[in-house]
Amino acid sequence: MSATWAKCRSVLITGSSRGIGLHTVKQLAKSSSRPATIIATARNPTASTDLQELSKTFPGVHIVTLDVDNEQSVSSALQEVASIVGNEGLNCLINNAAIGNTTDLNTVTPEAMMKSFQVNTVAPLFVTKAFLPLLQTAAARSSGMGIHRAAIINVSSILGSITHNWAEGANFKSYAYRTSKAALNMVTRCLAADLGSDGILCMSLHPGWVRTDMGGPLADLSVQESVSALLSVLSALSEKDHGGFKDFRGNVLPW
Amino acid sequence: MSATWAKCRSVLITGSSRGIGLHTVKQLAKSSSRPATIIATARNPTASTDLQELSKTFPGVHIVTLDVDNEQSVSSALQEVASIVGNEGLNCLINNAAIGNTTDLNTVTPEAMMKSFQVNTVAPLFVTKAFLPLLQTAAARSSGMGIHRAAIINVSSILGSITHNWAEGANFKSYAYRTSKAALNMVTRCLAADLGSDGILCMSLHPGWVRTDMGGPLADLSVQESVSALLSVLSALSEKDHGGFKDFRGNVLPW
Repeated sequence: MSATWAKCRSVLITGSSRGIGLHTVKQLAKSSSRPATIIATARNPTASTDLQELSKTFPGVHIVTLDVDNEQSVSSALQEVASIVGNEGLNCLINNAAIGNTTDLNTVTPEAMMKSFQVNTVAPLFVTKAFLPLLQTAAARSSGMGIHRAAIINVSSILGSITHNWAEGANFKSYAYRTSKAALNMVTRCLAADLGSDGILCMSLHPGWVRTDMGGPLADLSVQESVSALLSVLSALSEKDHGGFKDFRGNVLPW
Repeated sequence: MSATWAKCRSVLITGSSRGIGLHTVKQLAKSSSRPATIIATARNPTASTDLQELSKTFPGVHIVTLDVDNEQSVSSALQEVASIVGNEGLNCLINNAAIGNTTDLNTVTPEAMMKSFQVNTVAPLFVTKAFLPLLQTAAARSSGMGIHRAAIINVSSILGSITHNWAEGANFKSYAYRTSKAALNMVTRCLAADLGSDGILCMSLHPGWVRTDMGGPLADLSVQESVSALLSVLSALSEKDHGGFKDFRGNVLPW
């Protein structure tokens, strides 16, 4: 992992009880050059012994309960996070919490579609809206663009690339997941258009196909490999990445 | 309007009580070279005197009640349409029914987002799933690709283009509408990947910014101009348009 995460004083990762979220917290916490404040949120953090262990072992790792799909929970988490970060605000928000499913044309239901939109698209937008004052506070204290100032990272997927969903790229079927991630990419772009003037970088990130509960055992990458690569990409973000879509190797992806 | 709509024996348009839907029915019905069967659906067709008048004046214009967001209504409409089109099946389904709104970052609510996804994204998919057997019947009777065989036209918007949502293209703010149309474009692409082998053409269409109840009085185009142009584009569709996104002038749009 690149050492440049020290320039980011505080980072918040949603969905940190397992998978990519948990390993992002873990790699950041263990790094010699890391954010002073790492806020790991999860719907039910007490159920993740890994996460509990991390917060006991490493200083500055805060666990905050956050159900991204629950307005009251978002509101409570905001108060807690505000008191953790104080006047410095929040430098980096990583909207990672999401649900997966593999509904093809025959098996897709309206309920699966709506649930995916709710958790994967609408929740990241309203989590972002809630934490926006903290990001704006951080942005006002610095210049340029990147994780040293203020950034909103939406963990999307190449499966949300409409361009890529063709020929071999269309082999994986999931109407619900794909549409929710395409819509999340539009959220990224709307936010980027609106928040660029505040100096808040917004981008979508594809973490690769990762051997997590969601990605399954046949995926290309270990979660360690994916997280190491994406933390390196995030540490190097600058103004030219604002409003864009990149994968864990730093390649630009088409919408 | 191009005369080549005669090669399409049957067309169904959702949201036909007003705006683009109503004028699509009207221009097709009045054309000298038209589909024999024009099925105009609306949630509450009796409220549209224009639509009632059209079905009385022109032969082969059928009005069918269809609330695209209601499973029971979709199921009833399917039975009615199946008996209208009979063994020939349905050549062209135009998913036009939609809701608009102009929610910016401050005013957008989770409810507005979810309602837009429900009506503008999920409903077109499940209307398509319901009518798919009729489209497959028509597709099996012909070859090539286009409205002479079987086509699914999703009325999207350039506001659903993630690429276009930048600089001047980002001036119009609507998180709910934009995300729902980006997600609809992904639905188009998923359907295209799945239904191409059946010979069913699937594409997204941007009708232009039109002076309708949704587009407002300042829009670029009269509804007559938009509909005339888009009917011309649709009449010329072929295999190369499958899985694509075009505007009313026939220009390819980026996702």
